[in-house]
Amino acid sequence: MTTPRTRLHVATDLAGGLSVGLDPSQAHHVKAVLRLAPGDTVALFNGRDGEWLGRIDGIGKGWCSVALYEQRRPQAREGDLWLAFAPIKRARIDFLVEKATELGVSELRPVYTERTIVERVNLDRLRANAVEAAEQTERLTVPALREPEPLARLLARWPAERRLLLCDESGTAPPIAESLRGAPSGPWAVLTGPEGGFTQTELDALKKLPFVCAVGLGPRVLRADTAALAALAAFQALVGDWQATRQR
Amino acid sequence: MTTPRTRLHVATDLAGGLSVGLDPSQAHHVKAVLRLAPGDTVALFNGRDGEWLGRIDGIGKGWCSVALYEQRRPQAREGDLWLAFAPIKRARIDFLVEKATELGVSELRPVYTERTIVERVNLDRLRANAVEAAEQTERLTVPALREPEPLARLLARWPAERRLLLCDESGTAPPIAESLRGAPSGPWAVLTGPEGGFTQTELDALKKLPFVCAVGLGPRVLRADTAALAALAAFQALVGDWQATRQR
Repeated sequence: MTTPRTRLHVATDLAGGLSVGLDPSQAHHVKAVLRLAPGDTVALFNGRDGEWLGRIDGIGKGWCSVALYEQRRPQAREGDLWLAFAPIKRARIDFLVEKATELGVSELRPVYTERTIVERVNLDRLRANAVEAAEQTERLTVPALREPEPLARLLARWPAERRLLLCDESGTAPPIAESLRGAPSGPWAVLTGPEGGFTQTELDALKKLPFVCAVGLGPRVLRADTAALAALAAFQALVGDWQATRQR
Repeated sequence: MTTPRTRLHVATDLAGGLSVGLDPSQAHHVKAVLRLAPGDTVALFNGRDGEWLGRIDGIGKGWCSVALYEQRRPQAREGDLWLAFAPIKRARIDFLVEKATELGVSELRPVYTERTIVERVNLDRLRANAVEAAEQTERLTVPALREPEPLARLLARWPAERRLLLCDESGTAPPIAESLRGAPSGPWAVLTGPEGGFTQTELDALKKLPFVCAVGLGPRVLRADTAALAALAAFQALVGDWQATRQR
């Protein structure tokens, strides 16, 4: 099978015989950075129709047309794992979104906690990071990115069947491997706090909720971004989709 | 107990009654960035004598003197976990060293593999990242940082009793939680490749070694830095020091 020169996420429908136009910034990247030309093969995915191989059949300044000729992979079901996280400062939130995408998060939910000091979240930039990571990591979807909301509102509307893994840095929660031993699969979310951590009031309220599973992440004090990605990796290894080997 | 205004790693010996001089860049940071003044409390650690509280008893342009008055924590044994990793480009290697320090790596060993394209490793910059992460994460040590060397030389001198967790992105290795079930504690190392992965020749040779345990990290293709930190987090959760709760 032809190895595509790049993978791109598009919004449009994908099917054999269609010719798809890339958006201007993708076209610029393909032409000016990757220096692809008519006849070169690229792969496209949209989160619904699987991944398609296509040949560039026209390219110019700010436009590129791709003729789809073969489905490379059918759309597959992916894990249902949310990451709810307090916004943190710029380089670290970019990094967090990239890593969460690589680690298989299906939905990113910024939440304001009592000690959150970052007030503005640039959703467009975060979405661009998520798209790039999805393109890079062979995912067939891009994680959904929700508007930031207060933690209390997120919890008030919480779906009862979704379990919530609370990263509790207070040092009193049981180790993550112990807490997750024998844990059910099904929908989960990981919740991490801001750099200053959750307040005791927040922790007490969270731990009373029937869907919350509080876990400790070892003897060191982790930065907020480290805690989030470390919890996601341990979760995927213990309960999530790392339990199967890769199909390529 | 007084909460220190900052934690700093120093090279000098630490003991009650000593007065310790900070190095010029630390003194500048303490004076110009943190704006500390005589009487403020800081915590110092050196990897040997535990962590000490001290009061600033003199400060000026490029110098700062700290009078130690109380041991905050005794030196404790920390985990024996190496990270052997192919050097990657700048922002990602900085990130990798920071996260490896937070995740409890005791020794960082850059290794050149066949597909490694980054030739020069700035050990001074990496060491500064490790120190900063150790100061931040309440560690009592800074991971040792070795000179880069070819993978073959690292393996030729490998200590027989140290197990090597090989992050195998070929898709054929068993899942990490399965491979590590019932694994012994004791000295371990995690080995991760460059962006292009290990060659098949390298993987074949590695898998023949009696101390190597090859593991898969799920269905997605991970960037090199993501693979390293995700493997470290899963290892600590399953076999390493995340199995105990934090002592603060």
